Amino acid sequence: MRSTEDLLKRFVAGDRVALSRIITLVENRDEGYAELFDRIFPRTGRAYRIGVTGPPGAGKSTLVSCLVQSIRATGGTVGVIAVDPTSPFTGGALLGDRIRMQEIGCDEGVFVRSMATRGSLGGLAEAAGDVADVMDAFGQDVVITETVGVGQCELDIAQACYTTIVVIVPESGDSVQAMKSGLMEIADIIVINKSDREGAERIAAETRSMLELRRPHAYARPHGEAGRAERPGEPPQVARESLGANGHRINGREEPTRLQVPVLQTIASRREGIAELREAVERHRQFLSASGMLERHRKANVEATIRGVVDLELSRKVWNEASVARLHSLVADVIEGKKTPRQASDEIISLVGDI
Amino acid sequence: MRSTEDLLKRFVAGDRVALSRIITLVENRDEGYAELFDRIFPRTGRAYRIGVTGPPGAGKSTLVSCLVQSIRATGGTVGVIAVDPTSPFTGGALLGDRIRMQEIGCDEGVFVRSMATRGSLGGLAEAAGDVADVMDAFGQDVVITETVGVGQCELDIAQACYTTIVVIVPESGDSVQAMKSGLMEIADIIVINKSDREGAERIAAETRSMLELRRPHAYARPHGEAGRAERPGEPPQVARESLGANGHRINGREEPTRLQVPVLQTIASRREGIAELREAVERHRQFLSASGMLERHRKANVEATIRGVVDLELSRKVWNEASVARLHSLVADVIEGKKTPRQASDEIISLVGDI
Repeated sequence: MRSTEDLLKRFVAGDRVALSRIITLVENRDEGYAELFDRIFPRTGRAYRIGVTGPPGAGKSTLVSCLVQSIRATGGTVGVIAVDPTSPFTGGALLGDRIRMQEIGCDEGVFVRSMATRGSLGGLAEAAGDVADVMDAFGQDVVITETVGVGQCELDIAQACYTTIVVIVPESGDSVQAMKSGLMEIADIIVINKSDREGAERIAAETRSMLELRRPHAYARPHGEAGRAERPGEPPQVARESLGANGHRINGREEPTRLQVPVLQTIASRREGIAELREAVERHRQFLSASGMLERHRKANVEATIRGVVDLELSRKVWNEASVARLHSLVADVIEGKKTPRQASDEIISLVGDI
Repeated sequence: MRSTEDLLKRFVAGDRVALSRIITLVENRDEGYAELFDRIFPRTGRAYRIGVTGPPGAGKSTLVSCLVQSIRATGGTVGVIAVDPTSPFTGGALLGDRIRMQEIGCDEGVFVRSMATRGSLGGLAEAAGDVADVMDAFGQDVVITETVGVGQCELDIAQACYTTIVVIVPESGDSVQAMKSGLMEIADIIVINKSDREGAERIAAETRSMLELRRPHAYARPHGEAGRAERPGEPPQVARESLGANGHRINGREEPTRLQVPVLQTIASRREGIAELREAVERHRQFLSASGMLERHRKANVEATIRGVVDLELSRKVWNEASVARLHSLVADVIEGKKTPRQASDEIISLVGDI
């Protein structure tokens, strides 16, 4: 307890070692993590959360490095969470990526953390969200979570961020695959990285038309330009203008659920297109903020956190020595066909009685 | 209710349409699925469960097809679950795979089902386990679950199977990546598929030495041959012999936790090496059965099922109209810093009172 207080004190004072230690506790769901997390939670809610996802080898880490440097240039502090879902086979220049990450990691205003699936109990998405909360509580202005977009978990992580950037490369099928998988549906910004490669223009055009075909009514189109995708360099579509225009109907109210998704081209290795990307993020942030969706997003995240704590607490209350012992005898009953799983469950729950 | 009874009757009578319908209900966690699942659960426990996992493009589906045909040739019925974790970018000849699958799917003794992450509430691993249970209850002798080995979810699915086959190809880094990721640790059998490619022998040898380095004490080595990996064609290492020999210490008792992991070479597209693979599976099955580990495995699966039902029931009890309403007001309190997530959780749980 003594050391917890000390750890918290150092965390609040901006000690990076304390931050690192608390992240580890939270990531591993170590004993006492719940109490610690509860203590720092009131400090959260200030960081802007950006998700970056896409296929292996799309240059996500390089792009994130560029984005971090761009944010640092204007004085913001950044936390980066690189989620590597065990990924034995996702390939890509992992080592190279991490080295590039280390470059930005030397900066005192940047805190980089890699997370892997293994070792984190509970869901990876939940743990990644908790780590983002810790970085937020520490005072980082922006938290960027980078994931390889291969599963539901990665989609969940991306959706917990305010702005989700989907990165693809000019390779045959990538955009089609991304679209099929539902990844495009969660994108607030699409980046065609490595745009010096052949076919970049074509993929960008294809992606824009796919976006048009896919969700014709889900975007805010303030100027009534149904068929036109936004490109960098065009005047920003201010969110306020679009409110109440031709948006999506939710709960009986007309409102835009999202901005039209810009399709940008970058060459992260040469830092080309980064200013445009940064602008697009800022435009999206302003849209969310002005439309009240940022607040709604924050509420949804807090709601998920509370639900997570409820689940954990219930599980703690139900699984004690007596109920685990009963579980073992019930397993035998179920295998022998004397009871069904639900009858077994009812017995266990009745053991707990008043929670 | 009427239609549920009818559905169950047809399921028990071996109606494949009813099987398909029930799988859908269970996979989607549709209303009434819990009751239905509970009714058919007593029929489970007979199918042998095999997991096949590995990187995209390793030829898993072709290998599974071969394995299915081999099992069919000796009269066994098979259920195949192809888990495709959204996989926008896992690549591979998906369409081709499915076409190959359809070949075996025309056989009345084979039931093939694809599962994707999207659309399944609850965890994919849980849902895949439930679908395996349904196929088991239907009477399939063997259930094979094929996953792309990229995340914790896939590891969980593989571990719920009795025999886990990890498939890799002779490509640089695959075996090292698989080892790093922990995939090798869950392998009961390792297959180097596409062994007509260059480097197959080298990869096989590398893999064998990595296995030796990695877990020197975790394997049963009945003949005291510490440095020697098992190869197809060698006499089977009968499990009974190895009991109490030089195994792993668990709970104070000396016992072998697993057989030495064979590294096999196959060329699934030409059906080469399938008989050896089938033999290795059978050898592993006999080992599990004779050592009592099959029973332990079954118990662990049933325990996980009961725990899943308990979680679901608790969640149903806690989240009612009143608690959800309270949750919404608590979210605001937490955001304003008036309460911590745990205080909010305590209030919600206290609302439920006696469960």
